[in-house]
Amino acid sequence: DELGRTMNGKHLGPYKKEKLTHLRVYWHNSVNGRNPSSVMIQQPVLNSSLSGSITMMDDPLTFDVPRNATVVGQAQGMYVAAAQGEIGFLMVMNFAFTTGKYNGSTITILGRNVVMSKVREMPVVGGSGIFRFARGYVEARTKSFDLKAGC
Amino acid sequence: DELGRTMNGKHLGPYKKEKLTHLRVYWHNSVNGRNPSSVMIQQPVLNSSLSGSITMMDDPLTFDVPRNATVVGQAQGMYVAAAQGEIGFLMVMNFAFTTGKYNGSTITILGRNVVMSKVREMPVVGGSGIFRFARGYVEARTKSFDLKAGC
Repeated sequence: DELGRTMNGKHLGPYKKEKLTHLRVYWHNSVNGRNPSSVMIQQPVLNSSLSGSITMMDDPLTFDVPRNATVVGQAQGMYVAAAQGEIGFLMVMNFAFTTGKYNGSTITILGRNVVMSKVREMPVVGGSGIFRFARGYVEARTKSFDLKAGC
Repeated sequence: DELGRTMNGKHLGPYKKEKLTHLRVYWHNSVNGRNPSSVMIQQPVLNSSLSGSITMMDDPLTFDVPRNATVVGQAQGMYVAAAQGEIGFLMVMNFAFTTGKYNGSTITILGRNVVMSKVREMPVVGGSGIFRFARGYVEARTKSFDLKAGC
């Protein structure tokens, strides 16, 4: 018996044709306060600020800027402070959407986030549900940064 | 208002057409010495040599073989000793390029690296900047291995 079975392309159904979709979400990361959305699970190893640390996150994604705007999903994953000379994270995360036609679908992002740069581009490496076979990119821009709240 | 907006494919601009590019870099990983480029952040868990360990790296990529050749970028990420019976790493990393037209662009690699094999192929799962929408593969070959310096 064969491990793999070749199938007809028609099984791809609606996924055969690619559609270009633009999504904008506001991503809220908090490391302090009553219930922080992310937690450092590995402390920095070098005497530098963050290098070597790993932070796990379950950050809300909202439809609009304010933290209490409608939540459209969660960013779940890790940011890994791999860079030694600057604050440069390897981000590995799933955007799990929870509203409308996107509910239950995810987008997977794996890329480099140098937080002090104005725009950080990271690849979308896959997706599930409505985003099956997704490829693309995200552009992260810092809207606001509160050192005390760490978000 | 909708979370997602369908867009015209022309917005992909130059990225609509794929180009095949070959890059060769020399990747220097050092775990010992004065300032090692990688640091083990999770110790091996089994009584075996490396299994279960996680090492975080910010390794220089050079244009030519010698360690002091021109640096063209950094490999930032982690290698995870997932295999139990052999030295087999899950590699998750971004090649962040710093020279010429590639400066500021990245390639993201996620794959398996059995270091004792002659050639190890790993998938390129994405990229950013000039490498936006990248897909492809890398072939890793060990050029030299210095147990003392661990690189």
